[in-house]
Amino acid sequence: MKEPELNPRIELAARRGEEDTVVRVGDVLFGGERVQVIAGPCSVESREQLMGVAASVRESGASMLRGGAFKPRTLPYSFQGLGEEGLRLLSEAREETGLPVVTEALSPGDVELLEEYADVIQVGARNMQNYPLLRRLGESRRPVLLKRAMSATVEEWLGAAEYILYGGNGRVILCERGIRTFERMTRFTLDLSVVPLVKRLSHLPVVVDPSHGTGHSSLVPPMARAAVAAGADGLLIEVHPEPEMAMSDGEQSLRPEEFRALMGSLAPVARAIGRVM
Amino acid sequence: MKEPELNPRIELAARRGEEDTVVRVGDVLFGGERVQVIAGPCSVESREQLMGVAASVRESGASMLRGGAFKPRTLPYSFQGLGEEGLRLLSEAREETGLPVVTEALSPGDVELLEEYADVIQVGARNMQNYPLLRRLGESRRPVLLKRAMSATVEEWLGAAEYILYGGNGRVILCERGIRTFERMTRFTLDLSVVPLVKRLSHLPVVVDPSHGTGHSSLVPPMARAAVAAGADGLLIEVHPEPEMAMSDGEQSLRPEEFRALMGSLAPVARAIGRVM
Amino acid sequence: MKEPELNPRIELAARRGEEDTVVRVGDVLFGGERVQVIAGPCSVESREQLMGVAASVRESGASMLRGGAFKPRTLPYSFQGLGEEGLRLLSEAREETGLPVVTEALSPGDVELLEEYADVIQVGARNMQNYPLLRRLGESRRPVLLKRAMSATVEEWLGAAEYILYGGNGRVILCERGIRTFERMTRFTLDLSVVPLVKRLSHLPVVVDPSHGTGHSSLVPPMARAAVAAGADGLLIEVHPEPEMAMSDGEQSLRPEEFRALMGSLAPVARAIGRVM
Amino acid sequence: MKEPELNPRIELAARRGEEDTVVRVGDVLFGGERVQVIAGPCSVESREQLMGVAASVRESGASMLRGGAFKPRTLPYSFQGLGEEGLRLLSEAREETGLPVVTEALSPGDVELLEEYADVIQVGARNMQNYPLLRRLGESRRPVLLKRAMSATVEEWLGAAEYILYGGNGRVILCERGIRTFERMTRFTLDLSVVPLVKRLSHLPVVVDPSHGTGHSSLVPPMARAAVAAGADGLLIEVHPEPEMAMSDGEQSLRPEEFRALMGSLAPVARAIGRVM
Repeated sequence: MKEPELNPRIELAARRGEEDTVVRVGDVLFGGERVQVIAGPCSVESREQLMGVAASVRESGASMLRGGAFKPRTLPYSFQGLGEEGLRLLSEAREETGLPVVTEALSPGDVELLEEYADVIQVGARNMQNYPLLRRLGESRRPVLLKRAMSATVEEWLGAAEYILYGGNGRVILCERGIRTFERMTRFTLDLSVVPLVKRLSHLPVVVDPSHGTGHSSLVPPMARAAVAAGADGLLIEVHPEPEMAMSDGEQSLRPEEFRALMGSLAPVARAIGRVM
Repeated sequence: MKEPELNPRIELAARRGEEDTVVRVGDVLFGGERVQVIAGPCSVESREQLMGVAASVRESGASMLRGGAFKPRTLPYSFQGLGEEGLRLLSEAREETGLPVVTEALSPGDVELLEEYADVIQVGARNMQNYPLLRRLGESRRPVLLKRAMSATVEEWLGAAEYILYGGNGRVILCERGIRTFERMTRFTLDLSVVPLVKRLSHLPVVVDPSHGTGHSSLVPPMARAAVAAGADGLLIEVHPEPEMAMSDGEQSLRPEEFRALMGSLAPVARAIGRVM
Repeated sequence: MKEPELNPRIELAARRGEEDTVVRVGDVLFGGERVQVIAGPCSVESREQLMGVAASVRESGASMLRGGAFKPRTLPYSFQGLGEEGLRLLSEAREETGLPVVTEALSPGDVELLEEYADVIQVGARNMQNYPLLRRLGESRRPVLLKRAMSATVEEWLGAAEYILYGGNGRVILCERGIRTFERMTRFTLDLSVVPLVKRLSHLPVVVDPSHGTGHSSLVPPMARAAVAAGADGLLIEVHPEPEMAMSDGEQSLRPEEFRALMGSLAPVARAIGRVM
Repeated sequence: MKEPELNPRIELAARRGEEDTVVRVGDVLFGGERVQVIAGPCSVESREQLMGVAASVRESGASMLRGGAFKPRTLPYSFQGLGEEGLRLLSEAREETGLPVVTEALSPGDVELLEEYADVIQVGARNMQNYPLLRRLGESRRPVLLKRAMSATVEEWLGAAEYILYGGNGRVILCERGIRTFERMTRFTLDLSVVPLVKRLSHLPVVVDPSHGTGHSSLVPPMARAAVAAGADGLLIEVHPEPEMAMSDGEQSLRPEEFRALMGSLAPVARAIGRVM
């Protein structure tokens, strides 16, 4: 099969030369030499939970904090997130730890509020083709973490980035989080080959979420190391103080001590391919 | 493999007995003896285009008109729909033909406007898990046509319906429109087996969209007949006066005369399984 | 998307004009006006089981008998079929009922034996790209029922047919039996749109197996009707006297009385599209 | 989702304790501390081609030579391999370089011949459920490299291994080579998460084929590094002196100098996770 070529109508997201886009979030640079780690709980559940995790992941070397305040859940009866209260807690955690914060928007109407509290706004897999949301984020002053939809082709994913770039917001970080395939022993199939592929086709930074991508905490560390070896610019890792008590996605969350061990194992892999952590 | 069982937390969308929900749209009943056909262009492009198609599909026996005013497109450079002008044209077409109208909402903010102009509000495949939109539609006075996302399991699809029902709007029509698989010679893989499956698991009516499901106008008629034979409560068919000039999805649109021929061929199939058209 | 075009290197399986290939098996013609039904147990288990099913499906109107003597099973500990004893029983059933018999070959070494006992030799989904087997069948005097592999594209499937045709055996019947997708509530996803698609691209007859394609006996009748409406030249249906006792695939087998009822419901569908049963 | 559990009927392939099976091929150990690299052309094309590649990959540090003599090809008109002549060349290459040789069997009838010439017998993805072949290999004195079928679940793959183990041949090396998904920009989707998953569920060594898994030579080096970081026990890499002239799979083959560069970059990754190359 011939070398993959992008739809020529994808203009702004397409690579034009050697230079990579580096997205700056405070002091944290995505797309440079350093591999960044974004860690935190799936959902913000309480002050105690969040502050504990935030302090712990910071100490282990994470460079950014994640946590969901508005949660897209398959059923209306599941925990839907703390909403604005969750945002306030994230903001408080940032003040305490100095870590910038990323959290998810579910609709254009959320963006203004999120801009107040968050440093980076996440578009989740289920909203990758929510075009009004993408258009609204094109006008935002915040960088966007754009997750690949669970059945999006690379072209559709870069097409979604194109909406944000076309709107005037050049700060897009792509995130591979697993695609839906016939294999159900893992929650999704983490498609690491898109890391080098997208870096050839686009100038945007690419991070990887091995927590959603595998669905099992035991698979997160090896796949995090593999993502770094594949050339990812960062990782998104779920950490929870008591995964078995988590209100969402506990099975795929690392305990703080497991996260610390993982961080220790990542640095040599990064060095092996000429990067730093 | 044992008989499929639904997640017991799906309550409102789950079948509880023999009785099917019949969704009434004006005089048109979805889920009863009659198989309903919703036809029209992918996008509303102009008064001339829409009025011509509307008159023609009505004459051929369609019971409802479809047409997109807000279009979710992979790239920002593609035609995005006529917006409110499109809605006004749809409303005008309804007055002329008497056909109720269905059109798509892309975000919660669209719903109030759509309620003014449309008889049924469509949730497209890309928005099936747009939960703020589903919640807003749970409070709407309009029935909802809920398309299955291109990689949604049956449980996720019924979970999306659950949001609308839980919000208080019991008038949900499910629509199978093809899932994403490895086969790319067809645009999607039309999963007709979900028709009898979902009718076992749920009381809601199910319609089928063979236009998106196959992506080729030549495959629409046989798959429309197959959908009826499988027990679908209705069909959603794209019709355009000049498919090769269409601003979206021309390859899968029937010409008015092809649609008329299709309608003629559907009635005997419906009768063969004890239904009417 | 433009009309699907076949790889031009597929020559013998490609449609060249209006004329369809009709494969004759005794008095049974595949690819003509009549829709043929091949019925029988997944595995031949005993004389009593087979003779009972054979007599019953014949009485209900089946035109051919199916039954496995060599079974491809996921684990070595599962029932592997009766082997040559199964073939003898099939042959006996043919003498008693007059129904021609189809059974599966697993390797080139099986073919000579199968030619003695069977009227049609089946290539199962797991062997669709077993090229030594296809080459051997190219030299056989028996027609071949070629199932689509669970992840084969249409081109790969027709490429497999090309091997048999190229070897000199022009009597190939294609069989769609479901593809593997993310949806697991059905055993496979029955891809009925390949019926009209393959009939456009190729001159070969196409039959459909809704038993494997769905995995649930409750879904077999509606999907059998849908297959006929889509234009299939025949059906392959599993029937077992006591499905709950079957040594393989009981969940997807119809009881004889269910099969009889299905046959009664198929004839009007066939008539509705201008065919007979 | 709860921790993945294997079908309890898979006995011999299932992990029973801490100990891993180490498969010895001459001096080469699969499943130990050392990560092994198997390299060579997709097809053996000529003495000159094979000897050149063999000498070159040995010099770069490969521990085993691969090359196809019997090739499974989608169409009968494609190059089908040199057959026994190819086996003789492989054997000659082993004598010259000292590298053990792996090559593919397509049917049970091939095995005796392959045992004469090859050190390891490969079961290709298209034959993973060719049970007569697996049974024959269960009686072989050669180790088996068992590729995962392009749509096989982990359980089906380990079920295939079970056939070989049950037949008495305990020397099975598993090989992940990409699964078939909706994404077509890569030839397959390399499913690296099965590496840690299968190593949890089974005691057998696992190697990865990033050449078939991606289909593009530019993606092979990063995915080879990722496979090592994920914990693979070895790699299978296609190398050709002139990829643009290759009779099969040229697009995914590395040139000898690209392979040398890759080998240099793999060693630090292996060291980073506590292994050697």
